[in-house]
Amino acid sequence: MADNTILIKNALILNPENNIEGKKDLLIKNDLIDEIADEIPEDKADKIIDATDKILLPGLVNTHTHLSMTLFRGLADDLALDEWLNENIWPVEANLNGYYCYIGALLGAVELIKSGTTTFSDMYFYMEDVAKAVDESGLRAVLSYGMIDFGDEEKRKAEIEENMNLFKNCNDTADGRIKVFFGPHSPYTASEELLKEVRRLADETGIGIHIHVSETQKEIDDVSAEKGLRPFEYLDSIGLLGPDVVCAHSVWLSDREIEIIKEKDVKISHNPCSNMKLASGIAPVSKLLENDICVAIGTDGASSNNNLDLIEELKTASLLQKVATLDPKVLTSDEAVAMGTINGARALGLDDEIGTVEVGKKADLILIDTNCANMVPDSSNLSSNIIYAANGSNVDTTICNGQILMENKELTTLDEQEIYQKAREAIDQLKKAI
Amino acid sequence: MADNTILIKNALILNPENNIEGKKDLLIKNDLIDEIADEIPEDKADKIIDATDKILLPGLVNTHTHLSMTLFRGLADDLALDEWLNENIWPVEANLNGYYCYIGALLGAVELIKSGTTTFSDMYFYMEDVAKAVDESGLRAVLSYGMIDFGDEEKRKAEIEENMNLFKNCNDTADGRIKVFFGPHSPYTASEELLKEVRRLADETGIGIHIHVSETQKEIDDVSAEKGLRPFEYLDSIGLLGPDVVCAHSVWLSDREIEIIKEKDVKISHNPCSNMKLASGIAPVSKLLENDICVAIGTDGASSNNNLDLIEELKTASLLQKVATLDPKVLTSDEAVAMGTINGARALGLDDEIGTVEVGKKADLILIDTNCANMVPDSSNLSSNIIYAANGSNVDTTICNGQILMENKELTTLDEQEIYQKAREAIDQLKKAI
Repeated sequence: MADNTILIKNALILNPENNIEGKKDLLIKNDLIDEIADEIPEDKADKIIDATDKILLPGLVNTHTHLSMTLFRGLADDLALDEWLNENIWPVEANLNGYYCYIGALLGAVELIKSGTTTFSDMYFYMEDVAKAVDESGLRAVLSYGMIDFGDEEKRKAEIEENMNLFKNCNDTADGRIKVFFGPHSPYTASEELLKEVRRLADETGIGIHIHVSETQKEIDDVSAEKGLRPFEYLDSIGLLGPDVVCAHSVWLSDREIEIIKEKDVKISHNPCSNMKLASGIAPVSKLLENDICVAIGTDGASSNNNLDLIEELKTASLLQKVATLDPKVLTSDEAVAMGTINGARALGLDDEIGTVEVGKKADLILIDTNCANMVPDSSNLSSNIIYAANGSNVDTTICNGQILMENKELTTLDEQEIYQKAREAIDQLKKAI
Repeated sequence: MADNTILIKNALILNPENNIEGKKDLLIKNDLIDEIADEIPEDKADKIIDATDKILLPGLVNTHTHLSMTLFRGLADDLALDEWLNENIWPVEANLNGYYCYIGALLGAVELIKSGTTTFSDMYFYMEDVAKAVDESGLRAVLSYGMIDFGDEEKRKAEIEENMNLFKNCNDTADGRIKVFFGPHSPYTASEELLKEVRRLADETGIGIHIHVSETQKEIDDVSAEKGLRPFEYLDSIGLLGPDVVCAHSVWLSDREIEIIKEKDVKISHNPCSNMKLASGIAPVSKLLENDICVAIGTDGASSNNNLDLIEELKTASLLQKVATLDPKVLTSDEAVAMGTINGARALGLDDEIGTVEVGKKADLILIDTNCANMVPDSSNLSSNIIYAANGSNVDTTICNGQILMENKELTTLDEQEIYQKAREAIDQLKKAI
């Protein structure tokens, strides 16, 4: 079979860490970035994309979401986490099935592609159905099954089996775009036995771990009361923590816990919109960054956000740190770009493959159109323009693994109108079932 | 001349305070909303807009901006207010002229129309040139000249004359779409004499007042040191405050100041993105709302935001209050919609004319397309979908004073590509002049 070749012409490249000056051409061969140069002849590629007036950057990486929860967008708002979860989300979730999760994941995939995210890390249920949506969409994903045992041994075995089956059936599928992680839900819903078994299996298999930790003050109080330790101290005491662990939220952290996170090279997925909307609190992100801790970004599910726009999330992250510390110099736009790209790649153990625009890396790339009212005049500071002025709607072209998923705002792999219709039907049926 | 008639069919109407259930038709005759009914015959109008899958709401009201500063988008970021202003903004502003302000205002007008704002309140320089841009764009505006005297008597007279000339030349022009306010810049840049003269003239003429108050802790310290009173206490002591005063920012407020604001029915323009980006602080908005104080919303200038997207601003306002108070129930999406519409109209003294969808009011209306990835499934809670899930890019149609300014995302009054080009040239010239 002939090579897949795409040539992107005249792009301003915004790269975290190793910036490239001036306009460049970039050649994609199959799934990889093959060449970056001042000028690459057009006859080297079957497909040409003119990136004049566009900024090229690595596809964004959303390190914590529950994609199928797009179905629950706007279902319940202006509530505290426990009331939102116990009285509103869990009753509809009780009626979920594989089909609904598949449709919700497709709906989420449309939103991700449209707003420039090429890789997402998901923790939810019916994950093989989510994997099917990932395969069809062309996105890259890290999938974990949300394991909850509340100390029940039988449940624990079944949950671990479910996550291991996901690994066996889906890891490295979809042309290698799907990786599987363990998804022990949190220190307050997963027992010590479950967490220890996850650590043992993670060491044995090399599977990473995705977990919610220290989201609310209530969680700190509850874990402290039960274990006599704060959540990160507790997780460290049972040996769970390591460089393969991605902790979502991590809002309430003592200095000792920050030390632990640094020592164990734990990765943090910051979710500012969700933490603000549920009034969970403000994570000490600038302090974590000062300590050279890898902080990535995540939107959480769409029902506590209520969208999956990672550019909006990064702006919120930056602005929130500035006002929380009363220091306008923290979490700069350059740092925010890194959080949304290379830090996400590192968190998911994919930094050899994605997160920067470099020859030899996967062609996970997006183009942002600057010829728009909210992006003019084109600042010489590309990261400022992306983080502070843009939003996901400025994304014009999305490429993942060398495949064009959206060009000039038109999707190529998914039929959005059909998906919207099916999503509307699905939530109507779910509401009726309560 | 024949009447201008537009019929909007099948719209879900989101109205602050007095909601209208179910899909409706709405007839515009000339500049006014003429009829709202279940079904209005198509032969009553020359122009039909099908609003199926769209939410109709009052045009948004941005109560504090410096429109021409769109030229300085991305010019300087991640800095404190004084460094940003003294070392970066003022040096380029020194070279401004009427042409640059006109082009900047046009660029801002494109962005406002595209993101659903139909009325804005502006304080800046060369305001007659801004008025020209307002006239051409079809937007509604309250314009004030930013008066700064630093205690210099001659400067004071010139500044007041400039603002009075703006009133004489522009008030009630552009088919009545332009009103003029006084714009004393702030209690630390405008002298007591200037503020007292503004109050006297305001009483005499009925002109409203637009002023920055209590933006930073430094301002509180400086005013307190000089006057022995906090800013709102000081402004009250010299008689400036009243229901015709709109105070931007108002971040640092004592309980006594909140009492004064309430007693004098002062209007507050909350600017969360700017306050966050410049690390100024978090305004106690939920406390102000609890006290039935009229809080409206503003983006501030694009160079401290860095866009004019009022939907994004309202989401940020809501989320910021929730996390600042650790109470997810404050600043609900319904309250946010009111802040962005009727509260803005009240702040500007325009609530008889705009701010709600009602027969007899001006036809300042926008349509938001819900058939988009970030808006599906269409929540039964319209305000949640607008505030938490949407952004300005979901605005599809913008109508002001009965004139269509944008339909299906296409502008009708302004040539955006020409404006972008001129704006790029303007900032290039301004930078070279430093």
